[in-house]
Amino acid sequence: MIVLNLDPMSKIPLHRQVFTHIKEMIENNTLKVGSKLPASRVLAKSHGISRTVVYRSYQELWSQGFLESRPGSYSIVRKKTPNINLKQRASKSLIDWNTAMTEVSKDIYGSVSKFPGSGSEPKFENFIDMSNLQLDPQIFPIEEFKRSLNTVIMNNPGIFNYGAAKGYLPLRNYIASRLQTHGIWVTPEEVLITNGTQSSIDLILRTLTQPGSKIISESPTYFYALPLFHLYQSQVIPISMDEDGLNIWQLEQALKREHPSFIYTVPNFQNPTGITMSQEKRESMLALAEKHKIPIIEDAFEEEMKYFGKVPLSIKSMDKNQVVIYLSSFSKVLFPGIRIGWIAANKTFIEKVTAIKNVIDLKSNSVIQAALYEFCKQGHYDLHIRRMHHVYKKRMEIVLHTLKKEITFKQVSWNEPIGGYLIWLKMSGLNMTENRLHTILVRHRVRTSPGSLYFSKKPESHFMRLSISELNEADIIEGIKRLKRVFSEIYSG
Amino acid sequence: MIVLNLDPMSKIPLHRQVFTHIKEMIENNTLKVGSKLPASRVLAKSHGISRTVVYRSYQELWSQGFLESRPGSYSIVRKKTPNINLKQRASKSLIDWNTAMTEVSKDIYGSVSKFPGSGSEPKFENFIDMSNLQLDPQIFPIEEFKRSLNTVIMNNPGIFNYGAAKGYLPLRNYIASRLQTHGIWVTPEEVLITNGTQSSIDLILRTLTQPGSKIISESPTYFYALPLFHLYQSQVIPISMDEDGLNIWQLEQALKREHPSFIYTVPNFQNPTGITMSQEKRESMLALAEKHKIPIIEDAFEEEMKYFGKVPLSIKSMDKNQVVIYLSSFSKVLFPGIRIGWIAANKTFIEKVTAIKNVIDLKSNSVIQAALYEFCKQGHYDLHIRRMHHVYKKRMEIVLHTLKKEITFKQVSWNEPIGGYLIWLKMSGLNMTENRLHTILVRHRVRTSPGSLYFSKKPESHFMRLSISELNEADIIEGIKRLKRVFSEIYSG
Repeated sequence: MIVLNLDPMSKIPLHRQVFTHIKEMIENNTLKVGSKLPASRVLAKSHGISRTVVYRSYQELWSQGFLESRPGSYSIVRKKTPNINLKQRASKSLIDWNTAMTEVSKDIYGSVSKFPGSGSEPKFENFIDMSNLQLDPQIFPIEEFKRSLNTVIMNNPGIFNYGAAKGYLPLRNYIASRLQTHGIWVTPEEVLITNGTQSSIDLILRTLTQPGSKIISESPTYFYALPLFHLYQSQVIPISMDEDGLNIWQLEQALKREHPSFIYTVPNFQNPTGITMSQEKRESMLALAEKHKIPIIEDAFEEEMKYFGKVPLSIKSMDKNQVVIYLSSFSKVLFPGIRIGWIAANKTFIEKVTAIKNVIDLKSNSVIQAALYEFCKQGHYDLHIRRMHHVYKKRMEIVLHTLKKEITFKQVSWNEPIGGYLIWLKMSGLNMTENRLHTILVRHRVRTSPGSLYFSKKPESHFMRLSISELNEADIIEGIKRLKRVFSEIYSG
Repeated sequence: MIVLNLDPMSKIPLHRQVFTHIKEMIENNTLKVGSKLPASRVLAKSHGISRTVVYRSYQELWSQGFLESRPGSYSIVRKKTPNINLKQRASKSLIDWNTAMTEVSKDIYGSVSKFPGSGSEPKFENFIDMSNLQLDPQIFPIEEFKRSLNTVIMNNPGIFNYGAAKGYLPLRNYIASRLQTHGIWVTPEEVLITNGTQSSIDLILRTLTQPGSKIISESPTYFYALPLFHLYQSQVIPISMDEDGLNIWQLEQALKREHPSFIYTVPNFQNPTGITMSQEKRESMLALAEKHKIPIIEDAFEEEMKYFGKVPLSIKSMDKNQVVIYLSSFSKVLFPGIRIGWIAANKTFIEKVTAIKNVIDLKSNSVIQAALYEFCKQGHYDLHIRRMHHVYKKRMEIVLHTLKKEITFKQVSWNEPIGGYLIWLKMSGLNMTENRLHTILVRHRVRTSPGSLYFSKKPESHFMRLSISELNEADIIEGIKRLKRVFSEIYSG
């Protein structure tokens, strides 16, 4: 017979009290290995508690290895294999994880852990952070998205189950029809929803490349694309950027010489240069891709954010022969944190990529997709884009104006983007390492994105990328003023 | 001078009306290529509309390629490169996507497109679907999750920005502390949040394997693991399943012979067999892994769903030497559709995998992670697990009871799982293809998961996997009755 001190008034549930008491009795040897616990019926009766309570606590004791046998039969105290808590475990893993890793994943770890935003950098107070592509939360349409989420959740509980591998059909419908405003005609079957543009590129690399495959890419380019290309052990053929987009002559030579898996381009307000490719170059690039039968990956992540004047048509809009794989995302105009992007391309290709995606991560988040569709359907997306335009156009005007006014050093130059969030500064005659420059920036409490990140080979000049995506107007002005002090320091010495 | 018919009372916004009119005038050649549009100021005045309206419509005309030049100067009608609509495009892509794809992605496409749930199967009315691992939406804690979402959204708009690469810290804290109820001690730094267990396995494969790497796996095993192993061109070494888990002797031989990248195991209610590995085997397996310094991937996706009697300790709970990589997920106990899982393992390993994840998809969904944390913090997760236990324990009892009662064919056998959702039927003496069997099942309006999917080589016997995860009690009984009719048909002929 065992006697337990139970407190029915305690906040701790009874089954938990029973569990803890018996556990302690086993641990301090009051209940010996091999001894029988009373039948749950008996213990329940003797303590005036329900049998379910006893049953649950016995089950938990079983789960944690204190008892042998199965329910129905007697429960016998067993020699428990100890759980290993933090103090008990060996200080080092038996596995040498560095050796276990592939060479390429080691490389990636080495480079990525130094990236801005990877968590290795301390966050300072009163910093103006021009390095990242977060958005200003002040502009988030929180209330509308919340309502959309609630509508979906209450009307369709089944949305919490796995969705279709290709993505939520109504959202694919919406995307297909919205793309028409950019001159792009695709069917919903030609749209695959992904976990954002990064994972879209990943899927394409996985489907089309193998180690040693060649990839044509603008240089500089989106800095997270480079380690991803490297992860697939593909060989990047860099094409320089002119003021109106990538150098077509170099592209033509490369296409004559090599047989790349694809051409990767960011035609609008390119990341990092802010350059928008001219209509002529888009047409030439498409013609070259068709001639050599090489797919173009058009990364149009900021397609919606055109502020000034004419922005040429997307390459996909002219894609008569279905050679363009078009990528876009809700991350850079709505919410970065919801991780929803898409690929629009030839149906055969989409079917194949969908199969690969299915194997990698089964499905995308169905709740967020449905909420997003509801949000778009209610017209909130259009309204939001309009608001984003309005706000960021003004911010872009301010940053360009302030740069012109404050940054009068002849060694510092930039060109004026017609959309997006990014300005690319070139710094001539700078005789210091990027790390040294970084230290000076930090001292002046301003952070920018170091230019070398965006090149596959070390560039000849110094560059930095400024982003205004997270900053309001006052912060933008203050950020540029701090940059001015940085340049004063480095160009006066 | 141009004159536009504008209707200020129309639902169509004025700027859209201006856009459409001018577009039509360009298309029907009323406005010729090279002609100037009136200055926005002039057109606004002559039509009594605001200049902003005209400006916006001109911008849209620019965007769509109807105009040359930039704002401020005159707008000139240009020869528009036509958008290619669906009818205008070539019927076939210039790219031969089949040739462009790697061999391995072709293979994957070939196998996965035949999987159940891949969308290729028609949905019939009045079907009992025992093939999938969706959950019963009736049990979803919709209201509580909705409240958690709303709390997070209203209190923390910044949550819509990118989160940390490793995942939302409070959720990692919660997971680390909750794992202690399964005897597992890890720090939050040793937890990486992923997009579900499938993507956890993917990340591990990416970090630890290269083409030709060997993987030890139970056979049969989780059927989506096999194409994923294949995607990495790894070579699977299958270890047979005994009634108490994988065959340790075979494991030992394999470890002596080969140097695999890891051992993949599903120790609880294994998918598909429902078998739970005994405590003794867990200890032996761990000892072998330590001896040969080979990591164990413990896929504990249903760790919480223990219904009957003692379930042995997780292997990770005994992992003194940090050789176990533990995977789990909210998918199989809460919502499949939110795509949140985690890896708990040695910190060095977690740091490396985090870098790889960062390159593949940047970050996981921060909003859902925060809502999930809120949900757990409020105690809803514990309550929900309790409810799930209660409901599915009963359903498992019912399916086992009904099977025993109805399926009395001597050729059909199964063992009784002590948790989870799956029952694995073996059908002896069946002289037909799996496709033929499938046709008969469909005719009787019941769907099960075909056994061959779960083997890397064609198995010698016929199997099918039954899942009760999506079915209520009445459907379970009806499903088994239909199976009875199927067996009557195939075993009487």
